[in-house]
Amino acid sequence: MEQSSAESRKPRVVIIGGGFAGIAAAQALAGSGAHIAILDSNNHHCFQPLLYQVATAALAAPEVAWPIRHIVRRQKDATVLMLTVRGVDTARKVVKTETCEIGYDVLIVATGATHSYFGHDWERSAPGLKTIADAAHIRRRLLLAFERAEVSVDPVERERLLTIVIVGGGPTGVELAGAISELARRTLPPEFRRADPSKARIILLEAGPRILASFPERLSQYARDSLERNGVDVLTDTPVDHIFEDRIVAGEKEIAASVILWAAGVQASPAANWLGVDGDPSGRIAVNGDLTVPGLPDVYVIGDLAFLTRPDGAPVPALAASAKQMGKYAGRVIRLRLKGRSPRKPFRYRDYGSLATIGRNSAIVKLGRLELTGFPGWLFWSVVHIYFLVNLRSRIFVAMSWIATYLTSNRGARLIAR
Amino acid sequence: MEQSSAESRKPRVVIIGGGFAGIAAAQALAGSGAHIAILDSNNHHCFQPLLYQVATAALAAPEVAWPIRHIVRRQKDATVLMLTVRGVDTARKVVKTETCEIGYDVLIVATGATHSYFGHDWERSAPGLKTIADAAHIRRRLLLAFERAEVSVDPVERERLLTIVIVGGGPTGVELAGAISELARRTLPPEFRRADPSKARIILLEAGPRILASFPERLSQYARDSLERNGVDVLTDTPVDHIFEDRIVAGEKEIAASVILWAAGVQASPAANWLGVDGDPSGRIAVNGDLTVPGLPDVYVIGDLAFLTRPDGAPVPALAASAKQMGKYAGRVIRLRLKGRSPRKPFRYRDYGSLATIGRNSAIVKLGRLELTGFPGWLFWSVVHIYFLVNLRSRIFVAMSWIATYLTSNRGARLIAR
Repeated sequence: MEQSSAESRKPRVVIIGGGFAGIAAAQALAGSGAHIAILDSNNHHCFQPLLYQVATAALAAPEVAWPIRHIVRRQKDATVLMLTVRGVDTARKVVKTETCEIGYDVLIVATGATHSYFGHDWERSAPGLKTIADAAHIRRRLLLAFERAEVSVDPVERERLLTIVIVGGGPTGVELAGAISELARRTLPPEFRRADPSKARIILLEAGPRILASFPERLSQYARDSLERNGVDVLTDTPVDHIFEDRIVAGEKEIAASVILWAAGVQASPAANWLGVDGDPSGRIAVNGDLTVPGLPDVYVIGDLAFLTRPDGAPVPALAASAKQMGKYAGRVIRLRLKGRSPRKPFRYRDYGSLATIGRNSAIVKLGRLELTGFPGWLFWSVVHIYFLVNLRSRIFVAMSWIATYLTSNRGARLIAR
Repeated sequence: MEQSSAESRKPRVVIIGGGFAGIAAAQALAGSGAHIAILDSNNHHCFQPLLYQVATAALAAPEVAWPIRHIVRRQKDATVLMLTVRGVDTARKVVKTETCEIGYDVLIVATGATHSYFGHDWERSAPGLKTIADAAHIRRRLLLAFERAEVSVDPVERERLLTIVIVGGGPTGVELAGAISELARRTLPPEFRRADPSKARIILLEAGPRILASFPERLSQYARDSLERNGVDVLTDTPVDHIFEDRIVAGEKEIAASVILWAAGVQASPAANWLGVDGDPSGRIAVNGDLTVPGLPDVYVIGDLAFLTRPDGAPVPALAASAKQMGKYAGRVIRLRLKGRSPRKPFRYRDYGSLATIGRNSAIVKLGRLELTGFPGWLFWSVVHIYFLVNLRSRIFVAMSWIATYLTSNRGARLIAR
């Protein structure tokens, strides 16, 4: 790429991926004297914790996705390039994209994760939720199921159309199940004349013994009760055997369904191949304490793609919070490095707690010893998520969307796009 | 379709199309004793006058499109069926859809219009703007042009990438040109490092001697001056000869461009074929004074699809206002008819004026003898459009989006969707 002679003397830091980790790294490098390039195949950063609300028509996509270049617009040392990376040549120190090569002095890889179907060919039948495009696709499927039920005159087909299965009882699965239940039981019924959306069956399948297994047992039981009160069938100890376009098989159970959603497995992006290192079974790259890749001292791996353990042996969880902390740490380490200094301490993940929402007036929160459920949990969840949105405009719009949905039960983004 | 025995005794009014005309007809029929079915291939009604703002990233799609069933949710005699109509059998009085047949006693056809390329094969190279999907497609092309210019290292290619041509100087063409100029000159420049969006060439081509030909000459000259002040090249008397993926040819001029938009011709939907009647050259169906089709007394044609003249010989214009008036009139006529009475007066179009916006602080308004331009015109335009939005929520969200865009010059929906 062309670079002015002044720029070419500056150290070049290339960041692949504009998610939580990549953006945090770029911001931590502001004013470091380096020339920073952020490469992403999308033009936008996506606030993944609220993506399920786009998938369930509560929020419009632009409310949770902002151009990466808008986020770093004031950081004049950062250039955003919308490019799809094809590989990395660590010997020549260049990133290979579909149209050009970009040289680096330091590389930060923050390409995150996508769904894992554990080797099965279920992606078409059971889409997962990681990107804005995924959310639009799921929204379309969900809304079409109700539209088709309204048109159908066959009671068996109508029952199938009104059956929605979510596979995976982690936070995403629970949030989807709760929001779909609200859509079916609160938003849609007054608008349908032939089908009854409130009779929709919403089924959450979990292979393990309890949902939200990363939370204490009491909170996980609360979440289950809360979902069941809202009409969600929660089936634990129910691993899935087969998924087809129109049904799902789990042991003895065969459920005819029109929408099957996947929230069960995560696979890291293919960056281990790019770097020529071995990933773990889910594709993650084990990193050193300073987040560099063993044997590649100029390459940092951060966010969901990185695998490292805490002093107690537990892995650092794949969360927005850990991605941001890694991004900030990597940015600071590289700043020191550019001044010829070494980092004093290895990366340490700070656990500020975890939280998951279940539906209207219902969420679970764990902050150290504090545990919240019900309305207090839900209010805390809402305030935290508004706070972490990227700017004032998003905060106002999302808050107003939530208030409108809370008051009217309508969901403002029920558009079936082509 | 299944119908309860009580319903089957009610007269059945079927409305094809949930645009301005169809919705107005359904609303005018509320409580008439008829069973009303609204058929549309989309689940949403689209507020077309603001579609150009979705195409230019100022508004999110859900801000100008609402589920048809949400609009008529309180009207319990109206059923909305998301179905794609394939034809009409006027002898058997059934509407044929892709999956079933729907019988009618009275049929209202309100399927509107789409683009006309006057027989040319230009649709792929020069998309037009009629639907939410069109707007998303145009937004993607526009935003990608700037992203690619930022990545490009070839100055000639970069210049082509930053050249945008709009064909057609009617209200849609003028609104697009003005909004794209704002995007390029106000919104994007602080966020780019290599390309300079403010140097983008935005060219409006008009075949006739002046833009906005339906307005008085003074207003049309004002619009031209205002566009030119905002950096838009306005070329009148410039009919287009050829359009290719990467350039447009008009007489001696050949312009290399990355985005070419079509706002020049309108073609009615294929309903004349369905009904077995002759359409005019642009596909519109000439209707009687009571909006029925000659020879088909049970079929009403309303909105952009209908052709009829005013007492002075001028055709009723294809506008949201005339579509709404026709819908209301048809609904009332059918109410009378169901009571065994005939309409007293033929449809009469009331011209409440016309208006078009050009850009920030600039619009033209003609209301009888009153003509407004500049900031007063723009304020009037804004208030009128907010007023006509479908509900309070949309009014608040669109007004707030406009205020945010006005204050910050940012545009809130700059998402490149896949």
